[in-house]
Amino acid sequence: MTRSWWGWGNVEDEVRGAELEALLARVRALVPGELTRHEPPSVAALGLPEPRVSAPASLASLCSADPGDRAAHAHGKAFRDVVRNLHGDLRHVPDLVARPRDEHDVVDLLDWCTREGIAVIAFGGGSSVVGGVEPRCDGRGVVTVDLERLDRVLEIDTTSRAARIQAGVFGPHLEAQLKPHDVTLRHFPQSFEFSTLGGWLATRAGGHYATLYTHIDDLVESIRVVTPIGISQSRRLPGSGAGPSPDRLFLGSEGTLGVITEAWMRLQERPRWRAKASAHFADYAAAVAATRAIAQSGLNPANCRLLDAAESLIHAGVTVGGGILVLAFESADHPVRGHLARAAELCRDHGGEPSAENAQDVVGDTWRASFLRMPYQRDALARHSVIAETFETACTWDQFDELHHAVTEAARQAMYQVAGTGVVTCRFTHVYPDGPAPYFSVYAPGRWGSTIAQWDHIKAAVSEAIATHGGTITHHHAVGRDHRPWYDRQRPAPFAAALAAAKHTLDPAGILNPGVLLPAQ
Amino acid sequence: MTRSWWGWGNVEDEVRGAELEALLARVRALVPGELTRHEPPSVAALGLPEPRVSAPASLASLCSADPGDRAAHAHGKAFRDVVRNLHGDLRHVPDLVARPRDEHDVVDLLDWCTREGIAVIAFGGGSSVVGGVEPRCDGRGVVTVDLERLDRVLEIDTTSRAARIQAGVFGPHLEAQLKPHDVTLRHFPQSFEFSTLGGWLATRAGGHYATLYTHIDDLVESIRVVTPIGISQSRRLPGSGAGPSPDRLFLGSEGTLGVITEAWMRLQERPRWRAKASAHFADYAAAVAATRAIAQSGLNPANCRLLDAAESLIHAGVTVGGGILVLAFESADHPVRGHLARAAELCRDHGGEPSAENAQDVVGDTWRASFLRMPYQRDALARHSVIAETFETACTWDQFDELHHAVTEAARQAMYQVAGTGVVTCRFTHVYPDGPAPYFSVYAPGRWGSTIAQWDHIKAAVSEAIATHGGTITHHHAVGRDHRPWYDRQRPAPFAAALAAAKHTLDPAGILNPGVLLPAQ
Repeated sequence: MTRSWWGWGNVEDEVRGAELEALLARVRALVPGELTRHEPPSVAALGLPEPRVSAPASLASLCSADPGDRAAHAHGKAFRDVVRNLHGDLRHVPDLVARPRDEHDVVDLLDWCTREGIAVIAFGGGSSVVGGVEPRCDGRGVVTVDLERLDRVLEIDTTSRAARIQAGVFGPHLEAQLKPHDVTLRHFPQSFEFSTLGGWLATRAGGHYATLYTHIDDLVESIRVVTPIGISQSRRLPGSGAGPSPDRLFLGSEGTLGVITEAWMRLQERPRWRAKASAHFADYAAAVAATRAIAQSGLNPANCRLLDAAESLIHAGVTVGGGILVLAFESADHPVRGHLARAAELCRDHGGEPSAENAQDVVGDTWRASFLRMPYQRDALARHSVIAETFETACTWDQFDELHHAVTEAARQAMYQVAGTGVVTCRFTHVYPDGPAPYFSVYAPGRWGSTIAQWDHIKAAVSEAIATHGGTITHHHAVGRDHRPWYDRQRPAPFAAALAAAKHTLDPAGILNPGVLLPAQ
Repeated sequence: MTRSWWGWGNVEDEVRGAELEALLARVRALVPGELTRHEPPSVAALGLPEPRVSAPASLASLCSADPGDRAAHAHGKAFRDVVRNLHGDLRHVPDLVARPRDEHDVVDLLDWCTREGIAVIAFGGGSSVVGGVEPRCDGRGVVTVDLERLDRVLEIDTTSRAARIQAGVFGPHLEAQLKPHDVTLRHFPQSFEFSTLGGWLATRAGGHYATLYTHIDDLVESIRVVTPIGISQSRRLPGSGAGPSPDRLFLGSEGTLGVITEAWMRLQERPRWRAKASAHFADYAAAVAATRAIAQSGLNPANCRLLDAAESLIHAGVTVGGGILVLAFESADHPVRGHLARAAELCRDHGGEPSAENAQDVVGDTWRASFLRMPYQRDALARHSVIAETFETACTWDQFDELHHAVTEAARQAMYQVAGTGVVTCRFTHVYPDGPAPYFSVYAPGRWGSTIAQWDHIKAAVSEAIATHGGTITHHHAVGRDHRPWYDRQRPAPFAAALAAAKHTLDPAGILNPGVLLPAQ
């Protein structure tokens, strides 16, 4: 398989043939417009500038100045990244891509870059959708440190169900190393195949399970981080009240405080019991109320994904008035049919119609199959000038109606302004007792050469609506460079000052991912 | 009711009469020695020095220089605090006790103290057992800021199940304000009656439930903190991946970064279904294995407290070879007898004998009744020169046997050295999939006037054993001043530097609880 330099995943998996025809047919029905296919430029045609820095002899063997390498590390995988790549618009590329073989190499790379004032961008799978790995560091050299060689599970403690794992391992290779021991990290973000443990930790990734142990934050036992002033190694502890949590400072630090090299992660046994169903609702408000009841029930479903009517139509092929709640329960220890039955009862209490408990869940399965193809389909649409992107947030239940209305209206108005029309859909990715994490998708007809400007207008409008109606600017996509304006407003000012002080202490030369989370020094 | 200035809780609730006789009889059987009762000195006899600072006119009405007030705020409620009080040994007392009426008063107090370089100790219920509220701040004036007037539930959002609550409210008054709305914070540390929300947040308190939503950390939606450079207010969010969590920096900050004035807290419905049982084990290792199996089962018991043989004897009145596992399940939504049945099955798989599922749980109930009297009994024993104190930790399951053996042996050897004999018991307060939180109690005969030195020797020995065998120096008792030597070794050095930088930025004059978590500036 060949990793795409410009788009999602593997070149061999791109949308083509019948899948492409069906996709374009669906899109034509939603967002009319010309659907001309555009080809990505070759790397050679990009005309990348010469690297501004060169590695010392001791590190030269780790560093690549290959244009394909540099191009593949210039952007993340957001819609705006893919479109810029398709246009050959790579204004900021790393000068070198370094691939440390071990932690010593990471230390040596940071030492060199600290001495020389070279910016360092820690790079896992590069699936950032917020400009988190893009070297917008004007006027200085940039080395992107790709951790792909740190890809091993080093120790497994089956008694405590935990493993010491190197940060650069990709999801599938991580699970493959755990499988012989009958354990799993059970962390499956949509990016699973093309993202790494270190990336998940640095960005506070959310897995695809709806409740309980799904956020990478809660799966961490200890973290090891190389900072410019030394290695930070927390202890393996199942719980500790000894001062503010060291791990929680590095979780979400997005490469600005250090380079995560390994972590002890909590594992789970592989599930043996499963039960799933979907419930149809004629009314969206009733569907939300049912979802809230389940989120507050303590049943803790593995899946509790409320699709609104548009999402149901596009991704599950079902016409429904209010929405579909896709439910699943799992356990490695005990049967879960009783849990599903109780959740179905809560659906019926709110006017929902759950599928039979043992029925094959066609709707849910269709949706799940669609889920894994979405990033590839987004790229196919981008090549046809369709604006297709997602954004996400979380809010308390009491705010949800207001936020949902405001965000949906903001998206529609913005799409009307820049594209004449468009569709916005909503699903919940996670639910908490105190609120949901709504995830929105937009589809609008674009004009080739203008789709980034069109999207940026939409994104600014919806971000503003999120910020002013009780949402977070990101629930699990991180801050990067693109969310900074809203993040800066969201976080408490004294905390921002404290974080900047912590950063300055750990990274006195200001080399680590400048411009992410904090202003570049 | 009258709060004791020198010991735990209310004067009217102290151990006396038949309870005292029975307690002393039990202790005589365990730790032989003289049991003479000593009386606490009167406050007048303490001869406190005159306050070194006086409040400006604008703040004078908030501040008390009353000797009883100052004495009651000089120490926490550890064994060494109570004994020092009994001896009239109050070397460090606050110069003034300030009781702000609202947040403005807190801001004004911090402004004044910042200007004058006066140390500020935020004080909730004063139940610290680690020197967290003791003004060991040589050479400078000290104002203890007692938040007891900030005692209201300000808003309740029953849709999201959350409430905005002032930090100075004590446990019972907090629950009393929630009860009319049929919700509960469901956070019941052993100190519940005499500790406050702000104290729980500042020290990362653990509730008495064994699993899931029991730590105050996980019940927080947002926190409001007055720092010397401004007010930090995080947003109400059920989840957010926007940078490192602001709340997690203040959780566990123990009054060193700011004064917590209020928080939005997650609530729960009051449980409607309950099931409980106890399982006897002939073998401790088998009991630990059963407890681990339940902790890793996903059943998430409300109680899962493994008492070792000595703990079973002393606090549940039962003679058993290995130990007793006290189990309970609760839910507001669905019956939990099935969960208990599965947990009982796991006990039987490991050789345990669970009580009948619907039987009255006499053993568990006896233990629970004993639990609430323990601090009062500790004080009664301290008055009779008995060394009676607890310490706690957490470790991964793979480390537990080694840690348990090392700590138990260290305690026994230390007691042998300083007291000739002694008893050490162990229970689990919390269990996680990756490890337990063992809680140890020691009882040894002391000599009046020497019991602190005797205890300090024991404490140093067990802390060393914890630190070198994979434990945390504290799971839920916090760091304060007394755990500093081991905390300093435990936390990663780069994190310590980052925390110090954050502290210096938020508290430039270094007035906030100097010496706690970090060296005094």
